[in-house]
Amino acid sequence: MIGNEMHQLCTELWPITRSITGDGVRKTLSILQRELPNLKVYSVESGTHVFDWQVPNEWNISEAYIEDEQGQRIIDFKDNNLHVVGYSTPVDEWINLEELDKHLYSLPEQPNAIPYITSYYKERWGFCVTHDMRQKLSKQKYHVVIKSVLKPGVLNYAELIIPGKKSQEVFISTYICHPSMANNELSGPAVTTQIAKYIQENHDRNYTYRIVFIPETIGSITYLSQNSEHLKKNVVAGFNVSCIGDDRCYSYLPSRDGNSLSDRVAIAALNRIDSKFKRYTWLDRGSDERQYCAPGIDLPIATIMRSKYGEYPEYHTSLDDLVNVVTPNGLEGGFNALKGALDIIESNLYPKIEVLCEPQLGKRGLYPTLSTKETGKQVRAMMNLITYSDGSKSLFEISELIGEDYFLLLDLVKTLVDAKIMSVTN
Amino acid sequence: MIGNEMHQLCTELWPITRSITGDGVRKTLSILQRELPNLKVYSVESGTHVFDWQVPNEWNISEAYIEDEQGQRIIDFKDNNLHVVGYSTPVDEWINLEELDKHLYSLPEQPNAIPYITSYYKERWGFCVTHDMRQKLSKQKYHVVIKSVLKPGVLNYAELIIPGKKSQEVFISTYICHPSMANNELSGPAVTTQIAKYIQENHDRNYTYRIVFIPETIGSITYLSQNSEHLKKNVVAGFNVSCIGDDRCYSYLPSRDGNSLSDRVAIAALNRIDSKFKRYTWLDRGSDERQYCAPGIDLPIATIMRSKYGEYPEYHTSLDDLVNVVTPNGLEGGFNALKGALDIIESNLYPKIEVLCEPQLGKRGLYPTLSTKETGKQVRAMMNLITYSDGSKSLFEISELIGEDYFLLLDLVKTLVDAKIMSVTN
Amino acid sequence: MIGNEMHQLCTELWPITRSITGDGVRKTLSILQRELPNLKVYSVESGTHVFDWQVPNEWNISEAYIEDEQGQRIIDFKDNNLHVVGYSTPVDEWINLEELDKHLYSLPEQPNAIPYITSYYKERWGFCVTHDMRQKLSKQKYHVVIKSVLKPGVLNYAELIIPGKKSQEVFISTYICHPSMANNELSGPAVTTQIAKYIQENHDRNYTYRIVFIPETIGSITYLSQNSEHLKKNVVAGFNVSCIGDDRCYSYLPSRDGNSLSDRVAIAALNRIDSKFKRYTWLDRGSDERQYCAPGIDLPIATIMRSKYGEYPEYHTSLDDLVNVVTPNGLEGGFNALKGALDIIESNLYPKIEVLCEPQLGKRGLYPTLSTKETGKQVRAMMNLITYSDGSKSLFEISELIGEDYFLLLDLVKTLVDAKIMSVTN
Repeated sequence: MIGNEMHQLCTELWPITRSITGDGVRKTLSILQRELPNLKVYSVESGTHVFDWQVPNEWNISEAYIEDEQGQRIIDFKDNNLHVVGYSTPVDEWINLEELDKHLYSLPEQPNAIPYITSYYKERWGFCVTHDMRQKLSKQKYHVVIKSVLKPGVLNYAELIIPGKKSQEVFISTYICHPSMANNELSGPAVTTQIAKYIQENHDRNYTYRIVFIPETIGSITYLSQNSEHLKKNVVAGFNVSCIGDDRCYSYLPSRDGNSLSDRVAIAALNRIDSKFKRYTWLDRGSDERQYCAPGIDLPIATIMRSKYGEYPEYHTSLDDLVNVVTPNGLEGGFNALKGALDIIESNLYPKIEVLCEPQLGKRGLYPTLSTKETGKQVRAMMNLITYSDGSKSLFEISELIGEDYFLLLDLVKTLVDAKIMSVTN
Repeated sequence: MIGNEMHQLCTELWPITRSITGDGVRKTLSILQRELPNLKVYSVESGTHVFDWQVPNEWNISEAYIEDEQGQRIIDFKDNNLHVVGYSTPVDEWINLEELDKHLYSLPEQPNAIPYITSYYKERWGFCVTHDMRQKLSKQKYHVVIKSVLKPGVLNYAELIIPGKKSQEVFISTYICHPSMANNELSGPAVTTQIAKYIQENHDRNYTYRIVFIPETIGSITYLSQNSEHLKKNVVAGFNVSCIGDDRCYSYLPSRDGNSLSDRVAIAALNRIDSKFKRYTWLDRGSDERQYCAPGIDLPIATIMRSKYGEYPEYHTSLDDLVNVVTPNGLEGGFNALKGALDIIESNLYPKIEVLCEPQLGKRGLYPTLSTKETGKQVRAMMNLITYSDGSKSLFEISELIGEDYFLLLDLVKTLVDAKIMSVTN
Repeated sequence: MIGNEMHQLCTELWPITRSITGDGVRKTLSILQRELPNLKVYSVESGTHVFDWQVPNEWNISEAYIEDEQGQRIIDFKDNNLHVVGYSTPVDEWINLEELDKHLYSLPEQPNAIPYITSYYKERWGFCVTHDMRQKLSKQKYHVVIKSVLKPGVLNYAELIIPGKKSQEVFISTYICHPSMANNELSGPAVTTQIAKYIQENHDRNYTYRIVFIPETIGSITYLSQNSEHLKKNVVAGFNVSCIGDDRCYSYLPSRDGNSLSDRVAIAALNRIDSKFKRYTWLDRGSDERQYCAPGIDLPIATIMRSKYGEYPEYHTSLDDLVNVVTPNGLEGGFNALKGALDIIESNLYPKIEVLCEPQLGKRGLYPTLSTKETGKQVRAMMNLITYSDGSKSLFEISELIGEDYFLLLDLVKTLVDAKIMSVTN
């Protein structure tokens, strides 16, 4: 069961302290390279201008804690890497409770959760704690220590290109900038890794696949600043992979266009698995589709998810874990949904019936020879496929039109092509 | 009452043993020629290639029965021509019950009905019986006799062309291959014959009408193989006429396109008669529209029916008769529905108001001279007609747009043309 | 409060005997010229051909009454100028009750209302009375006197052109042909006068505004016969202003096209004020939009109303007054609705984000620097504006697309333009 395999990869990646830059990203990418040997890692220097942004300094952290007057470490980064606000500047001071409180973040409504907070573009330091523990702090001096380094370095991302017969590309993007949280976001890299393996196994593939593992926002902007012209020319469909590992629901968020091939295929693939999947709108966006579909970039990138970011209670807290939230079943369901969408794109074709009027299926053994009240329904799917196979509609469009499962029709196409009464073009 | 006239024709045609070829077809067509002297009968030789098909051998049958050991004819083709599977090969044997049973067809759920079964493209023989009688058969030897001939001959069809001012054509097709059944399908030829007479009575007709009486499927395929290029160029609208003789409901089945003139006019004509008419989709098709609308043929052929084939309990059984199913009222209702659709097509025009701003209807006696609270509504239909008569919309489209009856508007157009403030183009 | 100002103007105009021609029209227009000094009055001679119509003779009336045998004036035009059928020919006769009755108009269902009746195009005379009083008439002789003059003269209308940077025009039309009635129609001229003042106050206006005060129907036809070519070329949006002074509801009637800028802006403006506003269709039309949107004229003129003509009980009777029907609040609401629509048209622009991918709002102080669970929603409106600002959609279209208030987005556009990351074109 590949759900277990993906869950295992999540577990291995879990403890690493990831951010948008730094050693944690590199360590994560090197583990992914072990899984995908052709994955290539790139570095972009701090300060590089990428559209409206600049690649920030690289951040690394070795140790962080809060000590009380008794010398007890009441908060320790070693216990949970969410305890420190991402990109915190170094500090080593004794401060009173009032001062400390200005640097604490907690969630009164989720008193046992550590929130996930970052401050990439304004220098500050802070600790994230459970509200329960914050309530217990007494009036005394506290020793706050963050041993971090924020200085020029690089931003890393990785790219895997799996060539196919066509130069047209299917683009898949996920991100590797979140520390120890599971659905958002170890599920994305784990499912994407598994999808990459699946694509590599098909040696007869039509499309070229471009798969990237990047830090969110600044990473996709950096990647687009280097590749957007090429992508605009070549990408015919694609998906942003995020929040795809819990087992509570399926979700879909459209591209800005809303009616691209990616959108329609995502809907069809989700309908096969769970027709009650949730449909969000472009106004609910919040991940890298914001960059991929931005005005002037205009890529056809849709998103297939399980529980969407911002929509489940554990989101962006320490409760988003590999026990209660992300499960092998959840990951496998997400993998299958994404695989279903990719399978349609990869196999889609334009069928054209090669005879005028209805073909005589009987003489080819494709039609019951005895006409009775019942036989009409038996060949209905095949006849419906044939009646719309005028060469102008893709098989996927025909499946939408006649309400038949795409893959069932794909089998029928093979039968009709073998019978030499149908031709197909890609 | 023309319902009686059509019912009388059905009664005359009833006993004839029709199939897709043979003497029964010719006898049927010769009776129709008596009604429509310009109807021309064509023959196509067995073996002729017609698209993906071949015209089959001609089938004729003189006698058929099952005799028991006591010499009693327990089944006799003379009693009901549905008793023999259509295109049965000859047989003359004594067989036991077990063997006989393999050649019997009955309907357990309709135990007093003889089913209608054919086997045009695979050679076999068989008898169709009521399930009641089948249950009564005892273990003994039976003498099965079918005196049929299946050998090269011809397939016949008939065509009537009624020329009009335009070379553009309205196409009407019905079929003459069903033996003794009433709604499916003596109603089609009977209503079509009456419609042909009605069209011939209008000596000022705009369109050319092409009316064919053919065997279903192989007949329409044969006809298209000879005429499809001409039809594609000239046919602007048309109807397949089938199952149009009972008095239980009205039905509509669209063309493959679904929004052709034929479709919209059929809907309008049915709405005038019974706004609760049943609407089927192209996926419910099952008659010669399958050929006329096939990819590459692409004719705008819709279907107006009473109870649709496959949708009424007596369908394709001996219960589909001229007593309980098809009635004079049923035929007349079907005739009127089809006539209504054809009347719209024939009379449709593009009205254009010839003055800018509203015309002064008052000075032409077309508007109440005293403006009161009430008068506004009285001339509403005329003003709505005028406001949309910009030359770009047909009268039929305007009737759809303003929700007024087409024929009421047609009268108003005449008034406005007489008043010299409206012009029309065809 | 400008509602009071408009109500005051209505009160001043109330007693004047208006019709489609005559002294009352001129007196009304001279009062409007006092309010709008640049308003220019035009005269068109009786008999002038205007499209399908002719400018009628000018009608003036000095006195009218019905006297009974006791010499008592039981009906006097001085009491209410609705008492005489508009365009009544002169009369001075003693007639009996039976004869008189043929010339009386009353409303049995509104027994205390005097109806408003006119007969512009057929010569007749008549009196309009309450049904209560009509019931009280006894069998005797009555002296009927109408001192009116119907002879060649002129039809008057007024036009105000307020130039803007563009030659493209916004067109506003209202009518000044109704005698003493309030919603239909002193509200139209009063609100239009106030709107004209409001437009004049904006010295930086983009569009040219063309505002006309005309008699209904014959006035708009006359105006179009002189100006329709210019209007077709220049008018981008416009409104017919009528029935805009009571405080009971808001209403919208579309242009013939139904989806013009005027239509969509009217809907947006009404939605801001009262999302339960009534929507009529083009089939409910009944005012000068009939001329402005006629085939061949085709102007994009929509109508914003309070209670629509024909839809409120006091319509076209003496009960349509300045006490119970038209109020300062009603007029102010109507003014604000129309002003809202015009403000959108005047300020609409095409925003284009000038950076690829999302702009970094943070470095410009436009984005919270600390990313938390909550901050996403705060900048939602700005991000949604940006994501659709691809230069192809107007700000108004974007507001429709993302469901945000137009004027809120207009403020955001200013912020983004100031931040130099957005450009706009008109």
